[in-house]
Amino acid sequence: MLKAPQHQVAGHEAAGVGNLGPLVDGSGSFYKPLQDDKRGSNEVAFYTLLSTNNGIPPHIRRFFPRFYGTQHIEASDGSGLLPHLVLEDLTLGRVNPSIMDIKIGSRTWAPESSEKYIEKCLKKDRESSSLPLGFRISGLQIYRSKELGFWKPGKKAAQKLSTEQVKLVLRRFVSSNTLNDLDLKPDCAFASTVYGGSTGILSQLLELKAWFEDQTIYHLYSCSILVTFEKELALQGKNPGAQIKLIDFAHVYEGLGVIDHNFLGGLCSLITFISEILTAPSECKIDVSAKVDQKNLTDSDGIVVHDQKKLTDFDNGVVADQKNITNSVNDVVPYQKNLTDSVNGVVADQKNLTDSVNGVS
Amino acid sequence: MLKAPQHQVAGHEAAGVGNLGPLVDGSGSFYKPLQDDKRGSNEVAFYTLLSTNNGIPPHIRRFFPRFYGTQHIEASDGSGLLPHLVLEDLTLGRVNPSIMDIKIGSRTWAPESSEKYIEKCLKKDRESSSLPLGFRISGLQIYRSKELGFWKPGKKAAQKLSTEQVKLVLRRFVSSNTLNDLDLKPDCAFASTVYGGSTGILSQLLELKAWFEDQTIYHLYSCSILVTFEKELALQGKNPGAQIKLIDFAHVYEGLGVIDHNFLGGLCSLITFISEILTAPSECKIDVSAKVDQKNLTDSDGIVVHDQKKLTDFDNGVVADQKNITNSVNDVVPYQKNLTDSVNGVVADQKNLTDSVNGVS
Repeated sequence: MLKAPQHQVAGHEAAGVGNLGPLVDGSGSFYKPLQDDKRGSNEVAFYTLLSTNNGIPPHIRRFFPRFYGTQHIEASDGSGLLPHLVLEDLTLGRVNPSIMDIKIGSRTWAPESSEKYIEKCLKKDRESSSLPLGFRISGLQIYRSKELGFWKPGKKAAQKLSTEQVKLVLRRFVSSNTLNDLDLKPDCAFASTVYGGSTGILSQLLELKAWFEDQTIYHLYSCSILVTFEKELALQGKNPGAQIKLIDFAHVYEGLGVIDHNFLGGLCSLITFISEILTAPSECKIDVSAKVDQKNLTDSDGIVVHDQKKLTDFDNGVVADQKNITNSVNDVVPYQKNLTDSVNGVVADQKNLTDSVNGVS
Repeated sequence: MLKAPQHQVAGHEAAGVGNLGPLVDGSGSFYKPLQDDKRGSNEVAFYTLLSTNNGIPPHIRRFFPRFYGTQHIEASDGSGLLPHLVLEDLTLGRVNPSIMDIKIGSRTWAPESSEKYIEKCLKKDRESSSLPLGFRISGLQIYRSKELGFWKPGKKAAQKLSTEQVKLVLRRFVSSNTLNDLDLKPDCAFASTVYGGSTGILSQLLELKAWFEDQTIYHLYSCSILVTFEKELALQGKNPGAQIKLIDFAHVYEGLGVIDHNFLGGLCSLITFISEILTAPSECKIDVSAKVDQKNLTDSDGIVVHDQKKLTDFDNGVVADQKNITNSVNDVVPYQKNLTDSVNGVVADQKNLTDSVNGVS
């Protein structure tokens, strides 16, 4: 019996009547409907060729989901038999996984894309955190407790997080005290077991980075890193199963002798954010204005998220708050101001500098 | 007595009547006129604050030109006293330097730039090699011999080089056999002494890379790495003075806790190109079509470039050839085609793949 995945944080969702989205069979397969334009066939081609590509070392191959071919199955929207990619179900066996879908790269479009597509993507890259950070959180869920369920902010809200908010979310992702009070400073209790260690997230990201510094096979646009772990296992002192996987390959191009500098740059940016948490887990600044900001983000929190319907409502609820978030962000984090206003804490008065130059005459 | 620099490969040039450009005094100072919009004051602010910034380690500080303040001097275009940045003359003491000005980053504009500026830069990034390669060669000169002078292709031609052409130019830059026949396969005779070694270009680029993986002080847009060495010294078995410097800081922004992923990505891309030459100096493919291509680029070659006037003519000459180059590039290097056509040599037939998917139904 196929059903909508329980733990989907980004992308089209099958939940609800008349929605086309992926399905899972509960025994390890994830059915992703082929998008009906070129994207669907592109992704099939990618997975098909990936399996025969000897240029990908085994320690990197494990970051890609397994591919079991394509299959026509009854689509989730009731539109009849549609072709689906059959992929590894990445959340199989996970009970209450905390998940982040992080779209890598400040640019989600290839140089050879159509004008219309470039325009659409560029707008989204500029409106989201992709341009300033080199990545954006496409969606996430953080497990809190049996009673409280998941914290799952709306996708649109997640994508537009400011730098400081992304730092906060990355800390909250590995904290124990998101359980009760989301206004609390994240304690980063699981940072060392989830992000750190020889098999942790940072270690995996660094393996990926080393490969991207060298590989000229693929340029991955609009591709995500899916980060997963189980907080309950961490609480029990067990291995929390921290894992990264690369997903979404509808916009992959040949590297043609050039590294994927766009992906690599964004990946390095994400790595510095994670490293920072491991280096200084307690250095999480939440000032008064950041709290206000955070409050807006969490207006729809505290709901026990159990079924897909509620998730959707929740999502829409946060989207409605989008405006508040954006407004408060402007108050909290001074958006990258020109260097002439202040460099590294040294406040320079642009006017004075200009005047002093003119004063030489 | 101030005069136009002898070895300028990019930017506005003072040579010729009525041109505003930088001047040198022959004793170590380079006078760069302040651009009269915000760019000029931005660059002054950058240099002023750089000198007081303790966050820049000494081994990185050496990559920036020395700054001696600002001064009003008689402008090169005869328009009277104008404010100039007084900087270190980076070619002082160089007799016949080979020089490349490499603008780093696939994006030359900051997220907070004006719509008009973004549109202008994006167009240039897309038309040049910036978008595909993560950098573009803004200008270059390669010393050939006393008789032949310099090989100095036009700036516009340099910026639009294809991937294969950039690889060729980076090899030609360190070859001895650019002396007589530019159609010859570059021998990369000086690769190990110029690019390689503990003080060579690659080593310097890697130092810079390590810093950019970490520093969140600056975001450098439209900034260049100037690569210089003296072929005559290399021929004499002496230290060729291989050196990189960062130049052009009119578009620097605060990092605000985020690394400069745009600069870092482009820098890593350049590093792979240089590394490749050191790893396999003899693996330079020039096929028949590439030769044709190369011929177009070198139509104006063979001229002994001695004075600034000729340089300008030469430049315009190559610009006139621009169309030819672009056309031939399309023939030579298949522009990044969608992965579905071919991945890593495995040629997949997009149509067949799609058909086979449909065939499952």
